Amino acid sequence: MLIQEYFKTRTDLLEKALDSYLSPATEYPHELHESMRYSVFSGGKRLRPILFFGTYEMLIGRKNINRLERLLPAACALELVHTASLIHDDLPSVDNSHERRGMPSNHIKFGTPTAILAGDALITKAIEILTELKNKTIAIQCIRIITKAMSTRGMIGGQAVDILSAKKKININTLRYIHLKKTGALLQAAVEMACVIHDAEENVAITLGNFALNIGLAYQIVDDILDEVGSFEVLGKEPGEDSRNNKATYPALIGLEKAKKTAEKLLRDSYNLIKNMKNNDVLIEYVNMIKDRLP
Amino acid sequence: MLIQEYFKTRTDLLEKALDSYLSPATEYPHELHESMRYSVFSGGKRLRPILFFGTYEMLIGRKNINRLERLLPAACALELVHTASLIHDDLPSVDNSHERRGMPSNHIKFGTPTAILAGDALITKAIEILTELKNKTIAIQCIRIITKAMSTRGMIGGQAVDILSAKKKININTLRYIHLKKTGALLQAAVEMACVIHDAEENVAITLGNFALNIGLAYQIVDDILDEVGSFEVLGKEPGEDSRNNKATYPALIGLEKAKKTAEKLLRDSYNLIKNMKNNDVLIEYVNMIKDRLP
Repeated sequence: MLIQEYFKTRTDLLEKALDSYLSPATEYPHELHESMRYSVFSGGKRLRPILFFGTYEMLIGRKNINRLERLLPAACALELVHTASLIHDDLPSVDNSHERRGMPSNHIKFGTPTAILAGDALITKAIEILTELKNKTIAIQCIRIITKAMSTRGMIGGQAVDILSAKKKININTLRYIHLKKTGALLQAAVEMACVIHDAEENVAITLGNFALNIGLAYQIVDDILDEVGSFEVLGKEPGEDSRNNKATYPALIGLEKAKKTAEKLLRDSYNLIKNMKNNDVLIEYVNMIKDRLP
Repeated sequence: MLIQEYFKTRTDLLEKALDSYLSPATEYPHELHESMRYSVFSGGKRLRPILFFGTYEMLIGRKNINRLERLLPAACALELVHTASLIHDDLPSVDNSHERRGMPSNHIKFGTPTAILAGDALITKAIEILTELKNKTIAIQCIRIITKAMSTRGMIGGQAVDILSAKKKININTLRYIHLKKTGALLQAAVEMACVIHDAEENVAITLGNFALNIGLAYQIVDDILDEVGSFEVLGKEPGEDSRNNKATYPALIGLEKAKKTAEKLLRDSYNLIKNMKNNDVLIEYVNMIKDRLP
């Protein structure tokens, strides 16, 4: 199967499931449900759910879309939590981002109060659908994985340090922490869920967790680089936002060339972690996708 | 046992558990953990956890604090979700409340971005600790109950309609919806959790759920009345906030006298729902507490 076909078929499956889990915009309160759907269906690349599918299908040893049906609650939960974090990150008092994926951000379209509630509601919905996983033990494990990823030791912690560091001088270790937590934590949750569902050996789970953290960090460094030298088309928003918000970036702290080299090394390390695993083509595609974004 | 002693002992138990579940303020990121603790330990009356304890001890037929230890994740989750909702409700773009329980509200003390994240993190923590309930089936049921209470059909839905109704003329049915969802839903979750844990008969669970919704609505109507005729001491914040925010209230829509009569009738109905149950003294105290707030 061509990798493009893999992404297309799994994305289609996911989109249908997301649509079925979310209340229609015709349901009361209309504006809230419309706002949730607006951000969920705004052209996200579904990187976390597809990484989850790809890891699971690697572990079971073959690509079989029928085996993914029962895992849809986990896949959708990852995407909903990611979307919620983007809505709250974009808020005027946080990153004050007016655009996301080339469209007005949620609070620009629906107002700040509704955007805050839409984020809360998407987190709530993510947990609610995880309870639908048939096996109760696995459901509990997946809920633990996703709440750990979201927690003050995960995404929320990363975002907090990001906010508290604005307009301060921070060092590369703090920036690394922010990037790992803000992006790596949920990617790690995606592979952890696949490992738990497949009951993978612990050393495999640890290796895959490190793979996810590495590509997450690489992704963020590339994003930092694109914010400096990229275009609206590649970023989906105006570049230069980080410097306007006085945010530290890899290029600002260590220079553009060294930032590129760091990203490249992380991608090489990521590749090395999985290169000997069978059926690893989807995971390798993640490494390549990030490499291809490098200017 | 005197009812005051009941509240005191159960509150003490709860406070210790909340303290143990929340990360210390010395843990990184410090300000985020401090902000979470600030709102959790700002003198809340713990009405939802104590209602949960009281319902459970009514159902098992005797007061036994030792039986509550294993239920602490559920009790604490109720309080954390409640606290999260208060933090997000108080935000400048939402109710713009500067005070809560006689103290500066979370965003006044820690800034809006940290307050948004503290709310998100408390929701996350609530779910995380629910996974610690020993019995997996009960854990899943409790997570379903609390996510339903928080959802767009519960608290978040009520808050959304509240926001979207500001500066609009709304009728009494819409206001009733807002109050039931914003306050009733989580009180209902408290009794539902007790019923699920005790495996109560369905008709008992339905009756107790209605009791919780009734006292929730009564509580909100009394709050509306106090906002018009109460004092800072009773409310914990300046009265008159609703009219300053152009919010509909029961007194504004149906007059002060009729609002009082509606609250009194709800409290009578609540009492009638549980008056024939054995060991109902804690639940009756809830009816009396609300009655006592009526000016």
